[in-house]
Amino acid sequence: MEYQLIAVSYEDSLATITMNNVKRRNALSLAHMQELISAFREVGESQARGVMLAANGAVFCSGHDLSEMVDQDLNFMERLLETCTTLMNTIQEIPQPVLARVHGIATAAGCQLVATCDLAVASHNASFATPGIKIGWFCTTPMVALSRNIGRKRALEMLLTGDPIDARTAADWGLINRVVAPEQLHAEAQNLLAAATSNSFNARCIGKQAYYTQIDMPQPQAYQYAQGVMASASQIPDANEGMHAFLEKRQPNFDQHGE
Amino acid sequence: MEYQLIAVSYEDSLATITMNNVKRRNALSLAHMQELISAFREVGESQARGVMLAANGAVFCSGHDLSEMVDQDLNFMERLLETCTTLMNTIQEIPQPVLARVHGIATAAGCQLVATCDLAVASHNASFATPGIKIGWFCTTPMVALSRNIGRKRALEMLLTGDPIDARTAADWGLINRVVAPEQLHAEAQNLLAAATSNSFNARCIGKQAYYTQIDMPQPQAYQYAQGVMASASQIPDANEGMHAFLEKRQPNFDQHGE
Amino acid sequence: MEYQLIAVSYEDSLATITMNNVKRRNALSLAHMQELISAFREVGESQARGVMLAANGAVFCSGHDLSEMVDQDLNFMERLLETCTTLMNTIQEIPQPVLARVHGIATAAGCQLVATCDLAVASHNASFATPGIKIGWFCTTPMVALSRNIGRKRALEMLLTGDPIDARTAADWGLINRVVAPEQLHAEAQNLLAAATSNSFNARCIGKQAYYTQIDMPQPQAYQYAQGVMASASQIPDANEGMHAFLEKRQPNFDQHGE
Repeated sequence: MEYQLIAVSYEDSLATITMNNVKRRNALSLAHMQELISAFREVGESQARGVMLAANGAVFCSGHDLSEMVDQDLNFMERLLETCTTLMNTIQEIPQPVLARVHGIATAAGCQLVATCDLAVASHNASFATPGIKIGWFCTTPMVALSRNIGRKRALEMLLTGDPIDARTAADWGLINRVVAPEQLHAEAQNLLAAATSNSFNARCIGKQAYYTQIDMPQPQAYQYAQGVMASASQIPDANEGMHAFLEKRQPNFDQHGE
Repeated sequence: MEYQLIAVSYEDSLATITMNNVKRRNALSLAHMQELISAFREVGESQARGVMLAANGAVFCSGHDLSEMVDQDLNFMERLLETCTTLMNTIQEIPQPVLARVHGIATAAGCQLVATCDLAVASHNASFATPGIKIGWFCTTPMVALSRNIGRKRALEMLLTGDPIDARTAADWGLINRVVAPEQLHAEAQNLLAAATSNSFNARCIGKQAYYTQIDMPQPQAYQYAQGVMASASQIPDANEGMHAFLEKRQPNFDQHGE
Repeated sequence: MEYQLIAVSYEDSLATITMNNVKRRNALSLAHMQELISAFREVGESQARGVMLAANGAVFCSGHDLSEMVDQDLNFMERLLETCTTLMNTIQEIPQPVLARVHGIATAAGCQLVATCDLAVASHNASFATPGIKIGWFCTTPMVALSRNIGRKRALEMLLTGDPIDARTAADWGLINRVVAPEQLHAEAQNLLAAATSNSFNARCIGKQAYYTQIDMPQPQAYQYAQGVMASASQIPDANEGMHAFLEKRQPNFDQHGE
């Protein structure tokens, strides 16, 4: 697929998807979300070990594109939000870890993107908000991701006031993993993504999928499910190699995905 | 309704419900809870944009009134706890944000009140406890609210020891939004409630209801539900006005509830 | 039962279960887990008010015993993980509070043990990790406990990188209750366990069971359940004694379990 609003690149087995609609502050228009869905699916089927979601311009992502939505009817809105949910689900469904590298503002569905990614690193200057209430609407779908990442009163404060929180607060509340100086942002994002993708590709795929499957289950059902996954995963070649390597005190030699 | 144990006032479109049974340390007797339920319902049907829950006297709320409960049979206890749950549900069911302004001690069902409110601000001198275990009982219904606001081990520590935590700890754990000096408590509570109620009334109603509906759902069901709510909410006049105002770079003029 | 890999002792009505397979870094072999299950069940039926889970040697618990698992088939793995889940469930099912006293490394199923206990105190030198990914597997069943104790991105960071977090971070994230200097570890663990077991035994049993039953329920169902438990619990002798003592401003005299 030819991308107009984003760029996809690969380096050292890691993919980077860069939102590049700088003039529109990387607003999530229908076209932009469709490109992101395609890009995540492309990466999901690629040999890449992990994905960085980044952005060009002063703003990470300004949420839905109001210029496209104003005066639209219910059918359009349903289609738009269905597409947005597909984007969020795709990020969690692909086998690779997805890390958001956040600078500037991540707002509304842009904040939802950060909440949805597996990992996130932000620079000191980043801020996060769900300001739908300020335009007479409400960040109802971003709320689904946000309220599963941070505590109840903190989520309600963000949703009811619409006011931003800074990156340190976001790290303190668990919405992001790390906050660093702007000049260290890319290196730190790379380091964390490298650490999260340096071992067995196959084990990681099984693990990421199992994470999101068990997280919504009651504990007894989660254990039942997780036992089955973990027992099966012990039989893959990488687990066999890993156990042998550990016992022999040597580095494991994992099946390199796609090599 | 004529209130004996509480006071209800309105100022600048904000309601304040003040627990005023100082001699009984604002214990939640059956009569006190029935008054609070009536007051929250009254405010819920009023033009008020938000509600502050406050208290007179040295103690915010000392929980259930033991003098009323001692030697009572199972039927009375069931009725009492059913009423207590109705009070908690009412706080989350009314359309307006409810903010607890906490000074002094909030204990047992008083701690549950704070955990149940949408937002909470406390003074440095406030403390929070679930001490039912100390009287040979257990804060079983307060636990429902508490364990949905703070982490598992923290909730278990409070429930098993019955010991209080201070306001800084409560803020750190996410049980309250802010902790301030006693002389700033009222102003800070007003500021946060004003920030949480300064935009579209109708959008906020839809949002608060959606928050509590989706929070207990598995994520796929929550998205399905939230998409429908958000698409519908895009069609209300305030959302239309808000989008136009944003695009025209002017302040929105929302339908003022009841004006 | 005669224990080979662990030791069980009783002092001042508190039980201590000490993992004592120092040479194997307290790895959770099938035999070790079976002994722990037996020991927790023994304590569960004893007069002990609470249980400390401790360890001898430099490592708290190194997780499953790879030397036992390497080259094993699916049936063995299923049996091993089923046994592991039984151990975790037993810790939460026995009536007494279980506190993990953690020094050194708690890794994989050892980290799961800490996440599963009701309470945990660690020394500064402790660390926690879920490093299954490093051996081409994944800490899938430890994830069930871990992801119910700490935030989503924090759990994913631990699971995907396999890297350890230190004790201060674990306390900050809510995985443990307290972190202290090594020389204060035992005293602090004793203090917290004493505080968590100093009141009515019967009330505590009801409360702990109710905690784990309600935590997985949607809120309306949780309240329905908790109301019934709390109303019934008001009728036990200790609750009657506790309420009378409180109103008479005297110390309660609870039915001492087994005395």
